[in-house]
Amino acid sequence: MSIESLPLDAGVVETLRGVSSGTITTVLLKKGLRNVWLRGTRPLAPGQPRLVGRAFTLRFVPAREDLATPASWGSPISTRAAIESMPAGCIAVVGALGTTDAGIFGDILCARMQKRGVAGLVTDGVVRDVAGVLGTGLPVWCQGTAAPPSVAGLTFVGWQEPIDCGGVAVFPNDVILVDQDGAVLIPAALLDDVVAAAVEQERFENWIMCQVEQGAVLPGLYPPNEENLAKYKAYVANGGK
Amino acid sequence: MSIESLPLDAGVVETLRGVSSGTITTVLLKKGLRNVWLRGTRPLAPGQPRLVGRAFTLRFVPAREDLATPASWGSPISTRAAIESMPAGCIAVVGALGTTDAGIFGDILCARMQKRGVAGLVTDGVVRDVAGVLGTGLPVWCQGTAAPPSVAGLTFVGWQEPIDCGGVAVFPNDVILVDQDGAVLIPAALLDDVVAAAVEQERFENWIMCQVEQGAVLPGLYPPNEENLAKYKAYVANGGK
Amino acid sequence: MSIESLPLDAGVVETLRGVSSGTITTVLLKKGLRNVWLRGTRPLAPGQPRLVGRAFTLRFVPAREDLATPASWGSPISTRAAIESMPAGCIAVVGALGTTDAGIFGDILCARMQKRGVAGLVTDGVVRDVAGVLGTGLPVWCQGTAAPPSVAGLTFVGWQEPIDCGGVAVFPNDVILVDQDGAVLIPAALLDDVVAAAVEQERFENWIMCQVEQGAVLPGLYPPNEENLAKYKAYVANGGK
Amino acid sequence: MSIESLPLDAGVVETLRGVSSGTITTVLLKKGLRNVWLRGTRPLAPGQPRLVGRAFTLRFVPAREDLATPASWGSPISTRAAIESMPAGCIAVVGALGTTDAGIFGDILCARMQKRGVAGLVTDGVVRDVAGVLGTGLPVWCQGTAAPPSVAGLTFVGWQEPIDCGGVAVFPNDVILVDQDGAVLIPAALLDDVVAAAVEQERFENWIMCQVEQGAVLPGLYPPNEENLAKYKAYVANGGK
Amino acid sequence: MSIESLPLDAGVVETLRGVSSGTITTVLLKKGLRNVWLRGTRPLAPGQPRLVGRAFTLRFVPAREDLATPASWGSPISTRAAIESMPAGCIAVVGALGTTDAGIFGDILCARMQKRGVAGLVTDGVVRDVAGVLGTGLPVWCQGTAAPPSVAGLTFVGWQEPIDCGGVAVFPNDVILVDQDGAVLIPAALLDDVVAAAVEQERFENWIMCQVEQGAVLPGLYPPNEENLAKYKAYVANGGK
Amino acid sequence: MSIESLPLDAGVVETLRGVSSGTITTVLLKKGLRNVWLRGTRPLAPGQPRLVGRAFTLRFVPAREDLATPASWGSPISTRAAIESMPAGCIAVVGALGTTDAGIFGDILCARMQKRGVAGLVTDGVVRDVAGVLGTGLPVWCQGTAAPPSVAGLTFVGWQEPIDCGGVAVFPNDVILVDQDGAVLIPAALLDDVVAAAVEQERFENWIMCQVEQGAVLPGLYPPNEENLAKYKAYVANGGK
Repeated sequence: MSIESLPLDAGVVETLRGVSSGTITTVLLKKGLRNVWLRGTRPLAPGQPRLVGRAFTLRFVPAREDLATPASWGSPISTRAAIESMPAGCIAVVGALGTTDAGIFGDILCARMQKRGVAGLVTDGVVRDVAGVLGTGLPVWCQGTAAPPSVAGLTFVGWQEPIDCGGVAVFPNDVILVDQDGAVLIPAALLDDVVAAAVEQERFENWIMCQVEQGAVLPGLYPPNEENLAKYKAYVANGGK
Repeated sequence: MSIESLPLDAGVVETLRGVSSGTITTVLLKKGLRNVWLRGTRPLAPGQPRLVGRAFTLRFVPAREDLATPASWGSPISTRAAIESMPAGCIAVVGALGTTDAGIFGDILCARMQKRGVAGLVTDGVVRDVAGVLGTGLPVWCQGTAAPPSVAGLTFVGWQEPIDCGGVAVFPNDVILVDQDGAVLIPAALLDDVVAAAVEQERFENWIMCQVEQGAVLPGLYPPNEENLAKYKAYVANGGK
Repeated sequence: MSIESLPLDAGVVETLRGVSSGTITTVLLKKGLRNVWLRGTRPLAPGQPRLVGRAFTLRFVPAREDLATPASWGSPISTRAAIESMPAGCIAVVGALGTTDAGIFGDILCARMQKRGVAGLVTDGVVRDVAGVLGTGLPVWCQGTAAPPSVAGLTFVGWQEPIDCGGVAVFPNDVILVDQDGAVLIPAALLDDVVAAAVEQERFENWIMCQVEQGAVLPGLYPPNEENLAKYKAYVANGGK
Repeated sequence: MSIESLPLDAGVVETLRGVSSGTITTVLLKKGLRNVWLRGTRPLAPGQPRLVGRAFTLRFVPAREDLATPASWGSPISTRAAIESMPAGCIAVVGALGTTDAGIFGDILCARMQKRGVAGLVTDGVVRDVAGVLGTGLPVWCQGTAAPPSVAGLTFVGWQEPIDCGGVAVFPNDVILVDQDGAVLIPAALLDDVVAAAVEQERFENWIMCQVEQGAVLPGLYPPNEENLAKYKAYVANGGK
Repeated sequence: MSIESLPLDAGVVETLRGVSSGTITTVLLKKGLRNVWLRGTRPLAPGQPRLVGRAFTLRFVPAREDLATPASWGSPISTRAAIESMPAGCIAVVGALGTTDAGIFGDILCARMQKRGVAGLVTDGVVRDVAGVLGTGLPVWCQGTAAPPSVAGLTFVGWQEPIDCGGVAVFPNDVILVDQDGAVLIPAALLDDVVAAAVEQERFENWIMCQVEQGAVLPGLYPPNEENLAKYKAYVANGGK
Repeated sequence: MSIESLPLDAGVVETLRGVSSGTITTVLLKKGLRNVWLRGTRPLAPGQPRLVGRAFTLRFVPAREDLATPASWGSPISTRAAIESMPAGCIAVVGALGTTDAGIFGDILCARMQKRGVAGLVTDGVVRDVAGVLGTGLPVWCQGTAAPPSVAGLTFVGWQEPIDCGGVAVFPNDVILVDQDGAVLIPAALLDDVVAAAVEQERFENWIMCQVEQGAVLPGLYPPNEENLAKYKAYVANGGK
């Protein structure tokens, strides 16, 4: 049922940490992908650093009173078992149907994820016991917080399956980059292309920003006309000075 | 990935065809289940008969331009392959994320389901080419109709898995009863209990309705006080006369 | 707790039966009232006639498992007791929080209302057992149909109180007019003014419609310039010919 | 402010009348356009025929009490003036912000549009006085009906401007095709390409449907493998027999 | 019309101040209550302390221009009169229909509540003049802030009645506990049972959290197997050491 | 297509900076305007000062893949051209259809607006690259942040046209006042009346607040009875002491 989790090259992680989520969406848009930003994934705490990692997916369906009980927490298909399968460095991506009135995890499960070296938690749902979750130090992106346990609204059904998270299709091992603007998905098959294009896009937009700060007007600059393109190419040829 | 589909006892089908979806929800509520009615499952055509069958589930996630293309229709994990796995008499239950701007199926797929003896199609999404779908004769319960194909909004990812349909958790082989009030789910494990209680509940409410038609007042009748309970028991003892 | 229900003058009922809900909203808008149309109040069956009557209000709050049980149907504050308090000719207006996944009433309660001479049922919620409800002959305006009983989503708390129905404040004894465009409210205190203005507005718009059918252009006609106003006045002076 | 309206070639209209809205969306998806179906545009009456025409756009913003008054109906920028500018054969496409509690037009304005030879009315809002509107014979696609006048919720600001209708960008003179599945937009610049591809797609899907009716299985047929593609080509070469 | 407000035992307040809202929902779920968390009740300011008190309820219906005017603020049924009826230590729970574009109260009313010793304000609506409200020091849980006064969207109709707040049925004198995860309701009739179970649940989860911090894995711990249950019992027997 | 932008009297700006958005809505409500608060316009950063200025409007419609491309950023009708038309001191009001999954502007465009002396940016949409936008120092009111560029969800179509922003009709050169409670609109034609009334309303509410802080009860004070009105008049006559 579950797809095996894969490692992510450390160099890719390092490079992408210097690229904003916005730049990733611009690069993917140029490749025809418009639906890659996970709606509702806001930082739980201010100042959470940008993270990059493979998606480790978890899937919920709605609660049914005969299934979603505290007793279910001990079943073989449980959030507990899923967490014990998470590799260090992954980003847990939890499809929670956008549910905002039942928290998928509280302090105990987040503490265990932190112990296992999970890089972060991203969900279109909410967490519970926000004070406790913040205390664990696990970086979380979500819609907010709610007191009730997951079983009040959700039934856990599996991990490392394709999921819907925030209106985006996330497959196991797709790459997630998340920062203050929320989480974006890079399809695993497009990773190398995206990394290369993103670094260039980031450099180019930084150059534009410098021009604007020096008083340049926008038309002809962004996007650049021939003259400005030549100036940018000279800047690049000069080693970015 | 897929759970094997099971047959449903013909006697159970026959018995439940005489029970309304409303009665099933009353019976399940008394057992503590409040979330068993699939939101958004309205009859596509007037006069569609009540249907009873095992759920054969299909699951969609949102569209991603690199995945949800016309080319994907030929992949091994496709709606086409799923349909060819459906047993006669099942009810196809399609979790479509409540999407109303892309039709899950049109006339061609519905025609094939009809050929295979599928009893009916239930979804929290919509169909496309409504004239064509009606022409196939397949009974459909859904939110309505939309012109765009599924790949404009959805990616198909599997069948016979647990799904969310209309805010209800549907597991493969749960029993579905659907009529003019929409689709209700009977958990497979509770089937026998529900059948017995539903027949009695139906008889009891019919008797109440007769009393009201004869001018009885509601308090003391529905729910019944001791006197009315005795009258009802006498009616039952007398063979329902 | 409950405000006493009042009769409505038969002449007023007769007069307003000749006025459309649209005309009432135009008249009230001219008096500064923009929020008088009860959202979600659609005819359950085609061809239901226009109705006029005093509002008899019922109020629900959300379900709570310790309160909203089948047993609650027998409590003194119950929908049953409320129905037995409804006077003939009233229009039952039920504030159901816009709930679409639990039916406020089914065939039994509607049959009893019909027996008591209730003119019609208006709600921002839904009914259950739509076949049965249609069989009672009680005219119903609502959002549609759902199988589950009210207690699956709602708790009944009282009648003849001010309520929210479809985003409109309805007070006991306000006047309701409902037709194919849904239900509009006439505040009790404004009734006489509205009746007089509505009859005139209806006559005026009928005259406009005749002009359009004869090929008149809209500018200068609707609203009328001096020339057209004079023509209309002559038409009225001539007894409407 | 307003863009001049253009005629549409009669041959194109004739050809497209034989193509379903669903086929148009499939053809446009293959060209990379996924957002061309106007949400909320349902037929007001059963059996309305398929229509094809240039979009004549109207634009509303929300109501403001100082602007949206009955008096505003006489201003130079009014729905009345817009209607008098509509050419015969156009399809009026009205961006109403998805408003469902104020009708954009009633019987009088629809009667005048019918008189002018407007082919049909498409809106993401609702109409008022549904009985009267149906009486005019003007085909309407919308979200439903409401009693209040447009000024209760909307302010009219102009015509033949780019608009949002049902979440789709409609520019004046884009082509609209509308049938039982609702309204789809064909960008004016893509018209010729779409017409050619749509006729072929329609023929191809009809052939598929025949195969399914004769018992063919879906995999390999839809989309076709080489064998089935060859069969289809033979069918076409044989003049469609 | 209004139910008398009751005091709450100081010992209960003291005990519950040591229990999180999350724990209360877990305890109530075990008793079958899943709908006790008031949606939309977020802390207005960071760091607001946990509060416990009886609910003093206020009820709004939608605005109607003939009723919801500045003049209405002086009527006998007014928010002003309601505030003067609030006992010290109560928690004002205001059912505002989830309205987010009209503030129920501003600085003046909140200042008066603070003067009267009201413990806090909880609503599914919003407040206005957020700077002023924060200045009063009254702790507030709500959906946010809006500039317009309540009468722009709401009509006040009474206090100490059953209400809907955030999709939960709140009856006068039910107990409210509110902290960073929002407000939960404890039905008055269940108070003693809940207090006892909540203290034990809190102790148990704290013990689990310690185990996780020491590196324990989740399966077998949460929920505990026999071995871990024995360890926990020993810990309790040892006085929680 | 575009309406010329007008200056705003410096004295008016100065005076209105001392008036809260809440007071403006109270003053406008007394003139019959209830829909003047732009929903979803929250401060992006804490502590943004109150701003007053003429509205410079921008209008988007939904994205269409053939129109909303990176290439479109260079067209004559572009956000870039619009920004270069903004006068110093204006408040840019951007109608973004309430879109929350595509940012209208990022750091580059906001930096350019800041350079041009634009007072602030108000939108019912979101911005992207929140860290960069905050770095520019431009005060922004919006619904939040999203990574994708505007063209992922929106098409820019013009400036200085009437728009919908947050459910409010904004016309070019209407006056906007925005503070911690969000943005309110003052119709240009009502400006002088509103300024005069707002200053008085602000003074009056401040006096009320002082009375409450000194322990006054609300009934008879707010709104004031004759006695309190006399006290207030004496206070005013005494120069506000």
